[in-house]
Amino acid sequence: MRNIRLKVAYDGTNYHGFQRQIKTAGPTIQGTLEDVWQRLVDEKVTLAMAGRTDAGVHASGQIVNFETEARIPEDKISKAFNSLLPKDIRILLAENVPFDFNARWSAVWKRYDYQIDNRRIPDVFKRLYTWHIPVPLNISNMQAAANFLEGRHNFKTFAAAGGDSKTFERTLYRCQVRFDQDLIRVTCVGDGFLYHMVRIIVGTLVDVGRGRISPEEIPDIIKSQERRRARLIASAHGLFLTHVNYTEESPFEVFPDLNSK
Amino acid sequence: MRNIRLKVAYDGTNYHGFQRQIKTAGPTIQGTLEDVWQRLVDEKVTLAMAGRTDAGVHASGQIVNFETEARIPEDKISKAFNSLLPKDIRILLAENVPFDFNARWSAVWKRYDYQIDNRRIPDVFKRLYTWHIPVPLNISNMQAAANFLEGRHNFKTFAAAGGDSKTFERTLYRCQVRFDQDLIRVTCVGDGFLYHMVRIIVGTLVDVGRGRISPEEIPDIIKSQERRRARLIASAHGLFLTHVNYTEESPFEVFPDLNSK
Repeated sequence: MRNIRLKVAYDGTNYHGFQRQIKTAGPTIQGTLEDVWQRLVDEKVTLAMAGRTDAGVHASGQIVNFETEARIPEDKISKAFNSLLPKDIRILLAENVPFDFNARWSAVWKRYDYQIDNRRIPDVFKRLYTWHIPVPLNISNMQAAANFLEGRHNFKTFAAAGGDSKTFERTLYRCQVRFDQDLIRVTCVGDGFLYHMVRIIVGTLVDVGRGRISPEEIPDIIKSQERRRARLIASAHGLFLTHVNYTEESPFEVFPDLNSK
Repeated sequence: MRNIRLKVAYDGTNYHGFQRQIKTAGPTIQGTLEDVWQRLVDEKVTLAMAGRTDAGVHASGQIVNFETEARIPEDKISKAFNSLLPKDIRILLAENVPFDFNARWSAVWKRYDYQIDNRRIPDVFKRLYTWHIPVPLNISNMQAAANFLEGRHNFKTFAAAGGDSKTFERTLYRCQVRFDQDLIRVTCVGDGFLYHMVRIIVGTLVDVGRGRISPEEIPDIIKSQERRRARLIASAHGLFLTHVNYTEESPFEVFPDLNSK
């Protein structure tokens, strides 16, 4: 037996989330990867994944692992997977890891990036990878609100019903709003994320950008622990799981540009 | 009667080219636009288009025009179109123009951009908008070859059979190869383009990048006027019609970054 870790990129447009379901509305990333492995080496495995992305959510750096008895050499695994996977899923790295490695439980911190298309008429080439908000957004207010979200908080306000977390304390190391012409990017880096947490944070930041919430209300909204204080949820297809970190390196060492405010 | 000009962006992935066909394998951009206009104002029109993009080719700045008797105000046309068009086609601008304006015949010069994904493992988010070339390419040789293609030449070598052009003399004002990490962009600006000309130019530049053709052979390949000397045709889905110019402004005035070699 050995334990294999994969780094996976996927366009979530055509998938009903990551996690294999008993009754599924369509293909999932997990199901597709497990099925391809079975076709490759005739072995049923169960993948563990770092982040359970929802339907329509993308990943450029999802991490999964699985235990296998197959003898396929480490350096042939990516190529074997990619030869059978559909073109919207690619294995970027495959390596043998110690048995105590679990993609979900070993993760120290994760990075998500969210894209908003703020043009009046949406960019057709970004339509599957952005949330289109045609009205003007006050970016500096969004940045101020994002600053209030950073730090260790009880994030219950920003957790949708249906998650399996029993605690709501999390540390958000960085919540950054940047823009490049009409593309707004929100980056969230934290030690853990509640169900729909990034999408509810982005929805709240958009409400700030539209002037429905002032940045100064954010500390009170956090403290309230009431989901109805953070009503708007950003659409799934603007969200990307970008990076999962398994070492003690800080996010600011791995991504130096996160230092710039 | 009046003459309306539209600026159109589209993701060509799901279309069988621009031009409406008698027997078509699937929807075309022209057919979709004409059908939407008919649904909007109950009038059959025939669009003229600046560039007849092939199946899978994209546009961020296609220009079309049509004559109409409909009284819909100029400033409502884009919104009306966009309310009924599929999300992969957007009207960016609509305006009344003089009757002597024809999107095809009035064009002075056009710009096409071509994207090559030069990663070993393709970027899943660019797979519909790039040609994936996993092998190393010599960019400076590609740039040198592109320089030889600039100017006024008989481009018969670079014209596929099936075009309706009777002359092959064209001026290529600029043929530029740039790269940003693993993304290579080829920009072609010219007073007219033969059938598949940009894709055959890019295919030839890739053959140069791979070392199959040396840049110094390009003048001889042009002079030969033999299609077999430019064998490789770049795939359709890396190609974008970016801009069509109808004034006497030079490409270097409209796009100052084209000056940098």
